[in-house]
Amino acid sequence: MSGVVVRTAVAADRAAWEPLWQAYLLFYGRKDLPADVTEMTWSRIIDPVSNVFTRLAVVDGKVRGFATCILHPRTWAIEPACYLEDLYVDEATRGKGLGRALIDDLIAMGRRDGWTNLYWHTETTNATARRLYDRYDKADGFVRYRLPLKG
Amino acid sequence: MSGVVVRTAVAADRAAWEPLWQAYLLFYGRKDLPADVTEMTWSRIIDPVSNVFTRLAVVDGKVRGFATCILHPRTWAIEPACYLEDLYVDEATRGKGLGRALIDDLIAMGRRDGWTNLYWHTETTNATARRLYDRYDKADGFVRYRLPLKG
Amino acid sequence: MSGVVVRTAVAADRAAWEPLWQAYLLFYGRKDLPADVTEMTWSRIIDPVSNVFTRLAVVDGKVRGFATCILHPRTWAIEPACYLEDLYVDEATRGKGLGRALIDDLIAMGRRDGWTNLYWHTETTNATARRLYDRYDKADGFVRYRLPLKG
Amino acid sequence: MSGVVVRTAVAADRAAWEPLWQAYLLFYGRKDLPADVTEMTWSRIIDPVSNVFTRLAVVDGKVRGFATCILHPRTWAIEPACYLEDLYVDEATRGKGLGRALIDDLIAMGRRDGWTNLYWHTETTNATARRLYDRYDKADGFVRYRLPLKG
Repeated sequence: MSGVVVRTAVAADRAAWEPLWQAYLLFYGRKDLPADVTEMTWSRIIDPVSNVFTRLAVVDGKVRGFATCILHPRTWAIEPACYLEDLYVDEATRGKGLGRALIDDLIAMGRRDGWTNLYWHTETTNATARRLYDRYDKADGFVRYRLPLKG
Repeated sequence: MSGVVVRTAVAADRAAWEPLWQAYLLFYGRKDLPADVTEMTWSRIIDPVSNVFTRLAVVDGKVRGFATCILHPRTWAIEPACYLEDLYVDEATRGKGLGRALIDDLIAMGRRDGWTNLYWHTETTNATARRLYDRYDKADGFVRYRLPLKG
Repeated sequence: MSGVVVRTAVAADRAAWEPLWQAYLLFYGRKDLPADVTEMTWSRIIDPVSNVFTRLAVVDGKVRGFATCILHPRTWAIEPACYLEDLYVDEATRGKGLGRALIDDLIAMGRRDGWTNLYWHTETTNATARRLYDRYDKADGFVRYRLPLKG
Repeated sequence: MSGVVVRTAVAADRAAWEPLWQAYLLFYGRKDLPADVTEMTWSRIIDPVSNVFTRLAVVDGKVRGFATCILHPRTWAIEPACYLEDLYVDEATRGKGLGRALIDDLIAMGRRDGWTNLYWHTETTNATARRLYDRYDKADGFVRYRLPLKG
């Protein structure tokens, strides 16, 4: 898509980000995410001291998608890894290259800032998303185990 | 296994940890990991300020296995997630419950300290490891994409 | 003061903390602190991933004072240092030992958790505060230089 | 001093940094600093994930001075503060502007990266150092209290 600008989210983006975040949660069946979690996540996103950040895809001045990442150390490298936890493009703008623009932007940031890798997870059955992801590389043959510990 | 003690690695454990770490790297075909990465990883492990830590499985006073984890924020919870990046039990002691003791220990730590979840990855084809992991829960249906960015 | 309980601030303490925080800012002539700074500070205080935390002094179920600290690495020790940035006791409860209870509590936490030291600054001319502080130790003979960089 | 280059310390600078670090410790009567503290400090300095960093003053290809800083959050600002913990210029190169070059460099970094302030401490009686510091601003009228908690 021509005319897409990708930039870091700042405090003034809260109102534009929130509906996309809610639509993203709805997609994953997490409409019930408590409001205080959304508050904390936003606060971490705009906190320059935290290792959580969001890149926004902006088209014609409107925020149309986001990528939220967490930089963390790992044990097989000196450089940090970047975990792309959340990626979303609003439905009206789907299929026009915004998802690709967001991932390309992270790859460019990572090469510039010296991340060891960029990684994310997706549901095995999410064919639409995987069509995009497979253009970068195949899934790496690892599955995920996750044990909830709260409550 | 009776008599297994699980405890946090400290500076004095370096000599006992190193051969297990090297055997673990060998298993994953990473014998070539540069020495300065091992140095940095050990330094982070014993640094009380870092969010990387190692729990050791000790039997009769000998270190026989380790679990190295990274605590990091996530976007769907206020509490941190614990990423179990490396888990290893030395071959001579395999099959006696040390892997299970290390994971059980992390689950107990996480419940005590309020982690939102404990997660790890394993190769789809690693049947031995998955037999153990499946006792906790099935893999969660997510695959991993990972793009190396260095070099 | 008998009956003072010192405990960590949690999300539900926001309404009780805010007037004390505002009174504290007033004392330092910082009534003009932007609301988004207060928001961010509170968010960091209740974020279990951040290294900022607040201990509250509670008397008869009412929050009467607070100590806000930042744990950070330093270069002359492996263990973190604890910087006590803000200490406040509401005027009605002044002189009854709450300041002392808050500092004593931090000393006990630090001994338990292995901080290398606990430190704070105070105005050279603040005789009231220094009377309390001098009971712990004399000021250490260092002055502070601070250059604002914003704006 | 013409020809001074200020740059970030990297792994290959260890041998050049160590004698300056030891001379600096000697100045403060801390020749006894345990070797494992120096190891940890160096590891944090070159760790891109840590918030500790060192800038080196290099003249004619030789490292002649260093500034080691810790970035940390504070409660009166959204932006991080930069604590300049260690500043040293080797004796042979004293009085030629290297200390000034190191502080100027930090001020420039801070303006670029959005730190709220840059601060440091110095002994009240250190007239030589204060002559340099007073060119930036007067000491801010605060004294420091510091309670050792270990051992």
